Amino acid sequence: MRLPLCTFRTLLFRRQTANQQRRGLSGAAMRLVQFRRQGDEGVIRVGVEQGEGSGVVDLKAFDPSMPSTVRELLELGDKGLECAQRALASGQCVVERSNIHLLSPVLAPEKVVCVGMNYRDHCLEQNAPIPTEPIIFSKFPNAITGPYDDITLPSESQEVDWEVELAFVIGRRGKHIQEEEALSYVAGFTVANDVSARDWQMKRNGKQWLLGKTFDSFCPLGPALVTTDAVKDPHNLNVRCLVNGETVQSSNTDQMIFKTAALVAWVSKFVTLTPGDVFLTGTPPGVGVFRKPPVFLKKGDVVECQIDQIGSIINKVV
Amino acid sequence: MRLPLCTFRTLLFRRQTANQQRRGLSGAAMRLVQFRRQGDEGVIRVGVEQGEGSGVVDLKAFDPSMPSTVRELLELGDKGLECAQRALASGQCVVERSNIHLLSPVLAPEKVVCVGMNYRDHCLEQNAPIPTEPIIFSKFPNAITGPYDDITLPSESQEVDWEVELAFVIGRRGKHIQEEEALSYVAGFTVANDVSARDWQMKRNGKQWLLGKTFDSFCPLGPALVTTDAVKDPHNLNVRCLVNGETVQSSNTDQMIFKTAALVAWVSKFVTLTPGDVFLTGTPPGVGVFRKPPVFLKKGDVVECQIDQIGSIINKVV
Repeated sequence: MRLPLCTFRTLLFRRQTANQQRRGLSGAAMRLVQFRRQGDEGVIRVGVEQGEGSGVVDLKAFDPSMPSTVRELLELGDKGLECAQRALASGQCVVERSNIHLLSPVLAPEKVVCVGMNYRDHCLEQNAPIPTEPIIFSKFPNAITGPYDDITLPSESQEVDWEVELAFVIGRRGKHIQEEEALSYVAGFTVANDVSARDWQMKRNGKQWLLGKTFDSFCPLGPALVTTDAVKDPHNLNVRCLVNGETVQSSNTDQMIFKTAALVAWVSKFVTLTPGDVFLTGTPPGVGVFRKPPVFLKKGDVVECQIDQIGSIINKVV
Repeated sequence: MRLPLCTFRTLLFRRQTANQQRRGLSGAAMRLVQFRRQGDEGVIRVGVEQGEGSGVVDLKAFDPSMPSTVRELLELGDKGLECAQRALASGQCVVERSNIHLLSPVLAPEKVVCVGMNYRDHCLEQNAPIPTEPIIFSKFPNAITGPYDDITLPSESQEVDWEVELAFVIGRRGKHIQEEEALSYVAGFTVANDVSARDWQMKRNGKQWLLGKTFDSFCPLGPALVTTDAVKDPHNLNVRCLVNGETVQSSNTDQMIFKTAALVAWVSKFVTLTPGDVFLTGTPPGVGVFRKPPVFLKKGDVVECQIDQIGSIINKVV
């Protein structure tokens, strides 16, 4: 893809960006989002947050040659992320948050890879042994919904539960990736709720978890894809889930058994990873199904998933 | 999408197509393929076979406004399929098969939905009870490979097995689809090999089947998407798998426990189905893992999966 306008702007803004450190996939510390402008409902746009919860630089307004989705932006590699960084540095083309509807930062990945039983404290909660290999399952992409959109309670389940999870997104195509190099394949981190219908996950469908995990709207994701270089240590972040304001999960990503690099290396033994692939890295203790008595979500509940430095997603159950 | 040239051709070819019966999704009896022309390796094209194994009408050569993938063609709805039908009727823009490389008829679906234990005779083979509900699992789309492409034996598995399966492809978006209407959501049928690493499927990954099913190249698919109206009765078709010329599976789709319409209705309780979604409907008896002693694929083996009226896929194990 040609980037003529962007190249022109490069010259203008080189001074502002020259001193920024470059590490990891792009060297860019950014919060990438996807959004719709009000009154322009059909069109998805890529943006860069000026700060958590602040105004959003509209990438296509800054450079019309830029793509319309984060997945396409990642497929451009360094060029795309560098242009996004210049857009941010320009301070131009800013849209107020009140004028936009935030979407999930990735909408149609090839894969939503999920990890089960990946927090030490969550294993203890179930009296389950600590796994010696990651347990991998999946959701279909239809499950993904926006950071502030509703979770639809399906009439087919009576046992819908919450699971706050650190998610990450692949930025570079790869197979048989070595653990030492794995972080350079990660574009960044975001927050997910791995909503789960326990009846379907645990008691039906031949104990294959897929159906209980993949109802439409069962994967709220966002609000931003926080690039790897913007996160100091992804495995030392406080993680919380609140239901109707009450804290139900509270842990730290240092409890993760298989960390980001190990998961990338493991899954890439089996499949070619591609830009946009989403990983959900497992949940800490405090889910509803293991409470005594068990507690499940009901219409009207509000679920908030928070991860320090990454952000917070808030979804109403309808 | 505007179809100016196609509309023009409509007038020219109306006489040839006016008498064709219209039933199901499009009323069109066709064999849709995807291919690359030799010397034009990067570009995917949609074609319509003049007959099983015959020359292929190049849709974009007939009408440059037509899309480049079958998924996009399906997203156009009746318009796309009608134009494909006119292209076929025209007898123009035919490419010889020796000049093309056939790809899978769907390459990047949102979902590859798989059904386990769906043949009566396959359940008997395992002394397993007949399921009362479909057992649904999945592959990631990376597993899909062409009808004559190689199956890559991963070093991570010693127990790679074959599974011939009738596959179908969704042609219309839908949720909570009634069984009586379900066939009108099916674009057509094709042949799949649900290649399975039994060690990973049955003994590891917490007994979640995903990893053993989704290695790269573990879903050969094709050669054509045979539209629903071109198949007399999809549940009375002979199904065979041959390994190195020896018949290892031989059954009939009348053994399916949950048939096409029931599977569409069932899965659409959970997820919104979208054009291009692929369903693999389960395998008959004769897989390697239940032989005494078990038999698994090795480098150099040639696996052929055949379904009457639909076609045959042949894949070498490398």
